[in-house]
Amino acid sequence: MKKLTLILCAVLAASPAFAATKAKPEAKLPAVKNSADILKNSPAGDWRNLDPQNTLLMNLPQGQVVIELSPRLAPRMSANVRALVQGGYYDGLAIIRVQENYVTQWGDPEEDDAKAKPLPAGAKAKLDAEYSVALKGLPLNKLPDVDGWAPLTGFVDGFPVAADPKAGKAWLAHCYATVGVARGNEPDSGSGSSLYVAIGQSPRSLELNIGAVGRVVKGMELLSSLPRGTGVLGFYEKAEQRTPIQSVKLAADVPEDQRPKLQVLRTDSKTWADVLDARRYRVVEAGPDGKGASWYVHNPGRTDICSGTVPTRPMP
Amino acid sequence: MKKLTLILCAVLAASPAFAATKAKPEAKLPAVKNSADILKNSPAGDWRNLDPQNTLLMNLPQGQVVIELSPRLAPRMSANVRALVQGGYYDGLAIIRVQENYVTQWGDPEEDDAKAKPLPAGAKAKLDAEYSVALKGLPLNKLPDVDGWAPLTGFVDGFPVAADPKAGKAWLAHCYATVGVARGNEPDSGSGSSLYVAIGQSPRSLELNIGAVGRVVKGMELLSSLPRGTGVLGFYEKAEQRTPIQSVKLAADVPEDQRPKLQVLRTDSKTWADVLDARRYRVVEAGPDGKGASWYVHNPGRTDICSGTVPTRPMP
Repeated sequence: MKKLTLILCAVLAASPAFAATKAKPEAKLPAVKNSADILKNSPAGDWRNLDPQNTLLMNLPQGQVVIELSPRLAPRMSANVRALVQGGYYDGLAIIRVQENYVTQWGDPEEDDAKAKPLPAGAKAKLDAEYSVALKGLPLNKLPDVDGWAPLTGFVDGFPVAADPKAGKAWLAHCYATVGVARGNEPDSGSGSSLYVAIGQSPRSLELNIGAVGRVVKGMELLSSLPRGTGVLGFYEKAEQRTPIQSVKLAADVPEDQRPKLQVLRTDSKTWADVLDARRYRVVEAGPDGKGASWYVHNPGRTDICSGTVPTRPMP
Repeated sequence: MKKLTLILCAVLAASPAFAATKAKPEAKLPAVKNSADILKNSPAGDWRNLDPQNTLLMNLPQGQVVIELSPRLAPRMSANVRALVQGGYYDGLAIIRVQENYVTQWGDPEEDDAKAKPLPAGAKAKLDAEYSVALKGLPLNKLPDVDGWAPLTGFVDGFPVAADPKAGKAWLAHCYATVGVARGNEPDSGSGSSLYVAIGQSPRSLELNIGAVGRVVKGMELLSSLPRGTGVLGFYEKAEQRTPIQSVKLAADVPEDQRPKLQVLRTDSKTWADVLDARRYRVVEAGPDGKGASWYVHNPGRTDICSGTVPTRPMP
């Protein structure tokens, strides 16, 4: 049976939420539980439903991707993307680029063409660049952990946020699953007509260079596991390599019973603070029943905004 | 033609190596070029061939994955994995797990079974845990950039390394593309019979909790784009979902003309130092011909061990 342990537990290593059966006591161990138990025992009020006005449903042949927009961190762009969606702009467009360890991007393959799809009436073709917002007044739940990329980090409304207090700026961090707004050479050339999502090591160097508008809260695996494009920068070279986008709908525009039955953990909740602590201190002692101890032997003692992915769950 | 710019350049944004046509001058700009030019003009001596004794060729139906072992950072485990490879252990095994934003893992699906493949004579079933090596004497090319996860970071022999000078320890960092050694609940239960590669946000919290043995230098896209497993922790639930491993060979054991014609940039070279600087300072001015300026408008002023992937190139 030793082999089973080897192969199963090797993998369980992976899951911060997994609790194995042998205690690994360590000095100075904070009294934390594992993430799975914390989430299981969390109060209902620590979760929120997705706001249908800020939730996009992208339907691909492989399944549905759910994207949450952040009007607080990207007010102009969220409104424009919503207008594009409500005007049916993305329906029938395609995933045009998948670059390994970088981004999956979608939009109009014919954007430069006579066949280019016109933007709907309510959507702007040009917006002022929106790479950051004012830090002042932002309900930032700060992380104490050192971040190599920004002097201050935390979470706002469930989104990872980096900030520069000296400059008075904050921005949606470019973490794995963050949705950004493709742009041309001019800083104000992104309208949301082409969007991308980060699929590899979080491309933090893009921050303050391009705008982000939200994050994928469900279906990331559909965007991250696509074949990589073989053209320059991961563009697909042939039309048949592209994944067609059947439609992108605003959740508010579909009947209530067709909206995703999904909740997101509030990042201003004690549950989230506890989950972050469980990620920092993973060496968990066994309970009185001998169960609950973790596979970990070393506490990192820290986490960061891009490692601490905000949990979702089915509506209870 | 505006639209072409939009969609093409939005994407070019992605490539640190891409040089667009409009200058974005900025005060205090270091005199750096872009990465593509630096690599193009690098001296031949700044590159090295892969050592055939440390190079694994994993042949999948989709193509070949090339893995470089680090005997310096994982001496015992590199030797054991080499013995497993030379004994044909992985031939006919499979990719058994792909967990979204985490790892792709391979090994013997029947490891716990009567049908389990026996380890070859030269390979040990049990090794002492090897999660770090002595920092002293290690030829570490230090990074000056702050790392949230370790007090000291840099590169050794082309591998990303984190270190704790107080503890006198250094270890192969768990970056995207790092190959780790799956283990069971016991810290010394990893033999290399099951290996994994990081495919999402670098799982730095695994450091000092599990051993790493090398990195994928070619073919990462074959491991990162596989369908995610739907079982617990991303295990495939059905045999037919697994990708078969046709063979894993040591490069030294195949005829010279069948070895990968690949070079890796030396991380103790000036070229690598220059590439890292080009990643820190991306706002590049146009040359006298008006060409060469970057798409970037903001300099991150920093990089890190997991963002600065070490370049490879075909042998000239």
